[in-house]
Amino acid sequence: MRLATFTAGNGEELGVVTGDNDIISITRAAPHLALDMIDLISHWGERRDNVTEIANAREHVLPLSGVRLLAPVPRPGKIFAIGLNYADHIEESGMDTPEHQVWFTKAVTSVNAPYDPVQIPKVTQFVDYEVELVAIIGRGGKHINKEDAPAHIFGYCVGNDVTERMWQHRTQQWSLGKSFDTHAPFGPWITTSDEIEDIHALNIASSVNGESRQNSNTKHLVFNVWEQIEHLSQAMTLEPGDVIFTGTPGGIGAAMDPRQFLKKGDVVRCEIEKLGVIEATFENEE
Amino acid sequence: MRLATFTAGNGEELGVVTGDNDIISITRAAPHLALDMIDLISHWGERRDNVTEIANAREHVLPLSGVRLLAPVPRPGKIFAIGLNYADHIEESGMDTPEHQVWFTKAVTSVNAPYDPVQIPKVTQFVDYEVELVAIIGRGGKHINKEDAPAHIFGYCVGNDVTERMWQHRTQQWSLGKSFDTHAPFGPWITTSDEIEDIHALNIASSVNGESRQNSNTKHLVFNVWEQIEHLSQAMTLEPGDVIFTGTPGGIGAAMDPRQFLKKGDVVRCEIEKLGVIEATFENEE
Repeated sequence: MRLATFTAGNGEELGVVTGDNDIISITRAAPHLALDMIDLISHWGERRDNVTEIANAREHVLPLSGVRLLAPVPRPGKIFAIGLNYADHIEESGMDTPEHQVWFTKAVTSVNAPYDPVQIPKVTQFVDYEVELVAIIGRGGKHINKEDAPAHIFGYCVGNDVTERMWQHRTQQWSLGKSFDTHAPFGPWITTSDEIEDIHALNIASSVNGESRQNSNTKHLVFNVWEQIEHLSQAMTLEPGDVIFTGTPGGIGAAMDPRQFLKKGDVVRCEIEKLGVIEATFENEE
Repeated sequence: MRLATFTAGNGEELGVVTGDNDIISITRAAPHLALDMIDLISHWGERRDNVTEIANAREHVLPLSGVRLLAPVPRPGKIFAIGLNYADHIEESGMDTPEHQVWFTKAVTSVNAPYDPVQIPKVTQFVDYEVELVAIIGRGGKHINKEDAPAHIFGYCVGNDVTERMWQHRTQQWSLGKSFDTHAPFGPWITTSDEIEDIHALNIASSVNGESRQNSNTKHLVFNVWEQIEHLSQAMTLEPGDVIFTGTPGGIGAAMDPRQFLKKGDVVRCEIEKLGVIEATFENEE
């Protein structure tokens, strides 16, 4: 199933995306079924059949082109992101393959809708893209073994781990340079994990103004998604709706020769096989 | 005013701490005044007089000893923490004074009540204390100048930036080693900023089992609280209830000779002049 958060002008709604052009409003069909996506995810076991019925009934159908998709989880509890997790990106970064998983965070206030503009900050303009497979936690927990990890993932999205390289690197700590407002777009919806046969075999790509920049496959992840869940949950309780950015492949602008940063008007498209496309026009922060 | 979140066995309540021994339940006096502390902070302008009246009426008074204090903001949107921000701590860490503010994060799931036990994790046991002045954002905003920053701070707490040193340092990124469950105790309540004449002139101290470990004054902050707010808000929108750990002075266990880490049964007390005391017994994670 493909589940979205959207607005058609009357506040936030939940929906099921069917076919290529339609979204069915769960909120209109069953106003009290769920407060928001995290609430729906938290009670998915008992509400999945309701949502399936709503999708099958095909009432409250809206054209996708007539709604504004929001981030599927507009306000997650946590956003964690792993660095240096594709071999070609490690090489272009001039780093060694890490022995241990390297984690940083993106502020929850950096969440952005999948087609909304992304800001080039006032204070620093070394902005770069990083297409990433994003995992959304379903059932929470702690000390989740990698063998059990698939059962804890609700679904997947396409993400752009937008990064301000100056603030990322002028101290050793990356989190602030990863946390500018609008710098965590993801979506366009959540594809539930039962729809994906092998999450570690999907093409992943980005382009800037139509020019291909990143082009890889999730089979090249250094630490795979299950290992990431295992590692994070050794430290902290994962909760429904937590968002995990799983790493970016080679091809970032900062590693090009000459290096390239995003400028006003640039259009960045991020795509993952079976999960969809997100696309943002970059604008100067007002 | 001193505002607390607490429970007396019937769910979460908000309260005003008066004198040394009493807490007045705002929730019992006015059940619909605020959903939680973030809601109260968000509407403080119009609700402050109600809370003052409730405090003055002195109904619904409970003995402090009869309630369990919770973290004043049990579920903040963001927790940011600055590193290397007292000269003696920079020296003991073998680092240079940073040119730019060094920020990392603590996961919101690491929040802990001010007197609750803190866990020594199963997976790694190099656990250390760091007493810190904690600022709670009142009025949110972006691009807040340091001159305007005081007006954006709701109040202050005592925090312990509990840190797992192995996970902090085995990669360059500190956030995961700072984010273990229970590793962000703060409280015991929020002292509103109007009560504090000069936040940069308060004694700050910690002890382990009664032995003094850290003993400094907030006048020694390298980047003061206003500069921290200015810097963070250049990147991201600060929101009511966001929690800022403002740095720890020298005296951490990892810098002692021989180095000391916390073990089961250790009692860590953190204290800041005018803001109160928090205290935790360390336990092994079950």
